[in-house]
Amino acid sequence: MYRTKTCGELRASDVNQLVTLAGWVQKTRKMGGMAFVDLRDRYGVTQLVFNQDVDASLCERANKLGREYVVQATGTVKERSNKNLHIPTGEIELIVSELTILNAAATPPFTIEDETDGGDDLRMKYRYLDLRRNVVRSNLELRHKMTIEVRRYMDSQQFIEVETPVLVSSTPEGARDFVVPSRMNPGQFYALPQSPQTLKQLLMVSGFDRYFQIVKCFRDEDLRADRQPEFTQIDCEMSFVEQDDILTMFEGLSKYLFKTIRGVEINEPFRRISWNDAMKYYGSDKPDLRFDMRFVELDDVLKGHGFSVFDNAAYVGGICAKGAASYTRKQLDALTDFVKRPQIGAKGMVYARVEEDGIKSSVDKFYTQETLQEMKKAFGAEPGDLILILSGDDVTKTRKQLCELRLEMGSQLGLRDKNKFVCLWVVDFPLLEWSEEDRRYYAMHHPFTSPKPEDIHLLDSNPGDVRANAYDMVVNGVEVGGGSIRIHDNELQQKMFRLLGFAAEQAEAQFGFLMNAFKYGAPPHGGIAYGLDRWVSLFAGLDSIRDCIAFPKNNSGRDVMLDAPSAIAQAQLDELRIAVNIPPVC
Amino acid sequence: MYRTKTCGELRASDVNQLVTLAGWVQKTRKMGGMAFVDLRDRYGVTQLVFNQDVDASLCERANKLGREYVVQATGTVKERSNKNLHIPTGEIELIVSELTILNAAATPPFTIEDETDGGDDLRMKYRYLDLRRNVVRSNLELRHKMTIEVRRYMDSQQFIEVETPVLVSSTPEGARDFVVPSRMNPGQFYALPQSPQTLKQLLMVSGFDRYFQIVKCFRDEDLRADRQPEFTQIDCEMSFVEQDDILTMFEGLSKYLFKTIRGVEINEPFRRISWNDAMKYYGSDKPDLRFDMRFVELDDVLKGHGFSVFDNAAYVGGICAKGAASYTRKQLDALTDFVKRPQIGAKGMVYARVEEDGIKSSVDKFYTQETLQEMKKAFGAEPGDLILILSGDDVTKTRKQLCELRLEMGSQLGLRDKNKFVCLWVVDFPLLEWSEEDRRYYAMHHPFTSPKPEDIHLLDSNPGDVRANAYDMVVNGVEVGGGSIRIHDNELQQKMFRLLGFAAEQAEAQFGFLMNAFKYGAPPHGGIAYGLDRWVSLFAGLDSIRDCIAFPKNNSGRDVMLDAPSAIAQAQLDELRIAVNIPPVC
Repeated sequence: MYRTKTCGELRASDVNQLVTLAGWVQKTRKMGGMAFVDLRDRYGVTQLVFNQDVDASLCERANKLGREYVVQATGTVKERSNKNLHIPTGEIELIVSELTILNAAATPPFTIEDETDGGDDLRMKYRYLDLRRNVVRSNLELRHKMTIEVRRYMDSQQFIEVETPVLVSSTPEGARDFVVPSRMNPGQFYALPQSPQTLKQLLMVSGFDRYFQIVKCFRDEDLRADRQPEFTQIDCEMSFVEQDDILTMFEGLSKYLFKTIRGVEINEPFRRISWNDAMKYYGSDKPDLRFDMRFVELDDVLKGHGFSVFDNAAYVGGICAKGAASYTRKQLDALTDFVKRPQIGAKGMVYARVEEDGIKSSVDKFYTQETLQEMKKAFGAEPGDLILILSGDDVTKTRKQLCELRLEMGSQLGLRDKNKFVCLWVVDFPLLEWSEEDRRYYAMHHPFTSPKPEDIHLLDSNPGDVRANAYDMVVNGVEVGGGSIRIHDNELQQKMFRLLGFAAEQAEAQFGFLMNAFKYGAPPHGGIAYGLDRWVSLFAGLDSIRDCIAFPKNNSGRDVMLDAPSAIAQAQLDELRIAVNIPPVC
Repeated sequence: MYRTKTCGELRASDVNQLVTLAGWVQKTRKMGGMAFVDLRDRYGVTQLVFNQDVDASLCERANKLGREYVVQATGTVKERSNKNLHIPTGEIELIVSELTILNAAATPPFTIEDETDGGDDLRMKYRYLDLRRNVVRSNLELRHKMTIEVRRYMDSQQFIEVETPVLVSSTPEGARDFVVPSRMNPGQFYALPQSPQTLKQLLMVSGFDRYFQIVKCFRDEDLRADRQPEFTQIDCEMSFVEQDDILTMFEGLSKYLFKTIRGVEINEPFRRISWNDAMKYYGSDKPDLRFDMRFVELDDVLKGHGFSVFDNAAYVGGICAKGAASYTRKQLDALTDFVKRPQIGAKGMVYARVEEDGIKSSVDKFYTQETLQEMKKAFGAEPGDLILILSGDDVTKTRKQLCELRLEMGSQLGLRDKNKFVCLWVVDFPLLEWSEEDRRYYAMHHPFTSPKPEDIHLLDSNPGDVRANAYDMVVNGVEVGGGSIRIHDNELQQKMFRLLGFAAEQAEAQFGFLMNAFKYGAPPHGGIAYGLDRWVSLFAGLDSIRDCIAFPKNNSGRDVMLDAPSAIAQAQLDELRIAVNIPPVC
């Protein structure tokens, strides 16, 4: 060992001990006849002291240390006269008697500080230096701790972690697969799994009644912010369960994690809200319920009074922002601009300030005080509140716009505290989604999702109304996990394939191995998968999942540090019997 | 929940309880007016009982249950009159009052028993049924338990598990990479990692001084028995350490695993043996030391007596098998045939039985009793022992042949007990291997392995003699892990690249990101990687790593259950701008 102690562990109780530390030079300071060096490792920072009067050449060498040099220092622990109470090692310093430079360092392209001067691109190119920063490292420490605790909980509940293969076969349904040409089978490809969905269902057929895996998954999608081509899932499946059993089990996991990782004790059961209600009251299937501010529909109240914008709208609805009547005209104009941004796309916004002496709205000329009071009553509004109203031709679109406005108001009013966590289950998702473009139904989750038993009779008559035994776990407006009870009945599964427009042969070709397996005794089963990256981000209070991934890719799917992807040798292409840069098909 | 108890937990103390079980029908038996059904789940088997006199139609339904039907049964726990003490639930049975068939099952293509009638190919095609067998499932349960315990130990030693990317860049040194065409960057490829070697070294540069990861790795090799294109590694790296620190840390991990997984307490330190001695005394860099039977070199004793086979050999050496003098001529002939098999390739074998009244050898006509007594002394042999001798032109090859003979004798004499574990470190590997074919040196491990400091001066004069700070952990003749101290000095690394015949630009192109990182302050570091599949096999006493992998691939790299790899749609090839089945280059 190059050290006897770390840079984070020495305290006043260690005074007079002879110790050896090793780490990186964070900072050097010259003061009078003294040199001070802050030595950093993963565990903390310790101040090294060199005195010119005691050993001039040693002090001289200390003064010459550059930032990020790797050094080893032996010396005696002394109590500091000038204590730094902001850091755990601030009561002591090391009076150095021996100094060894283990490695010199070039000047890093940005400072290794919590607030660095490096931009995103530079930080990613030199990610190994970026990872030296406390703020980045602590995210990865949290990630490690979360996976340790997830495994501890799952193991305690008799779940077995089973590794499923990374080189699998392509499943054309869903997103695009990454593929891997097979040298031994020219012309054939492996696919990287988008999730171990079918494999975990096979494990249920095998009788592994409680499976989980923390596993890399892959999607070749055009990347949006906060998507990565490879991401990590906490993938779980259980047999002999109904929906309630799964919600209870994973509510347990979540509460355990909140307690052990964040020290947050959640005692009440998670609220459960139907997908319909989530859309109706919050315009989102992942509502942020740290604050209520639910939508109130105003068609009955505000239509038919001659205000043509509302009269012609398919939807008129609003939110009531408590205590925001003091918003200035300028603030309200800014909100109007916010909803009119192309990303949101509203045509305009109507507001009404609820005051002691009446309601003052932007549409006063169309409405009497009586109507406005009726509206106030619909919101349960009180003097001092601000009512904001949107309308539009398309109910779903307008709700989504109102959802954005609600979230913005929540942020402005400080109702979205990162240290407060509100968890809920969104349940009763529709089983199918109709695509106008393709004139067919698509599975909202995947084709193995079970309809609710009481809705099965609607499959023939009114498939769009069939609800699924599917659920999402939502925390603070983020969908952290989702799953469903699966179909375990072969006939019902065949019916689903027909409904989804699969020809029998096509279903056989794509899912034959699963359907075949189901013939040999499939138990009732269901599961859930969590996005680990998102969940860690949430616990760490991060805005981007990239900050909790050691070596993330950028929006073009590139690792700029490794310079991947890159060209490969012609010899390798020859071995694989493939050719590249084929002209695009027009 | 479809059950209130599992099929493995009911005991005599549960008598008279009303419970519900769910599982698979293992077996049905009709006896008098009774039906007996063995119901199986992951936890065990419970006997269900149906009485025709009590409920004829229920009993009738029970009699009609097929093998592997999935059923739910509610009833009352009763003490058995005829107890089965071989299984934990053998004291009770369930008097069933309600029976629900959750799913029917076709007759499986092989029996779901410990000793199945299914051959390897059938078992792999229906792996989901094979996994129902206790013997297979218990291997995966052991694997789960091992990873849980590995993580527990590593976490307790302040190691952080960091996920490194699966989509990385190609590194031409080493085995062949699997590659993934990038749709967004046509003509470019990601590579799947053969190991996270360079990434974990970057993490050391980042100051993550204790890293580990249980991680999938990939090698596109022509498969031999017991190789898989994807395999799992326990990958570890530490900073500020010397070789001894790593050996101590991971000896600790191994002892912890032997204790928690197998209940084997290992108190002595692992034996350490140099690579030179391992080759000299056991003809292998992974000797099985459950028994000694070390090689004795006999050139001095047996050469120059007119036996031309020995006189002209570059190596004459043998082993002494304690107590095997009673081997018959037939057994000795079989051993001779064994060493003459083409896989081993010896030309012949000389034997000598040590008896009370002298030594009787197959070469008596060339040697006097005095010489044979001298040989006996060299072995420390006693009456009743059998001496077996091989010779050859090539020292290394002959040692390898003798190694095979030694292992065979160990097996024949019952010295290789699967429940006995002998662990050792093989150290001081040569740094470089000379390739006659390419007329150049290759790195024996990888180009980042550090030479022993005391041998650095030989790098210029006699590179072949330089020993590396590299080590393998060997258990019962299986290399379960290996690693090295890495070079952290940029100049020494450049020198190594030159020695390995890399042009400066080539080294830059292939390892530039790592060399660049090293400029910014690399700490001294080193690590180790364990093959999880092999280690689990060893703990489980398996002959093949396949048996501890849920969904393994066959020797052609195929998953016969998923039918992967397979052809992909032309549209997908078009999107990737690649063409397949290009004629082979001649």
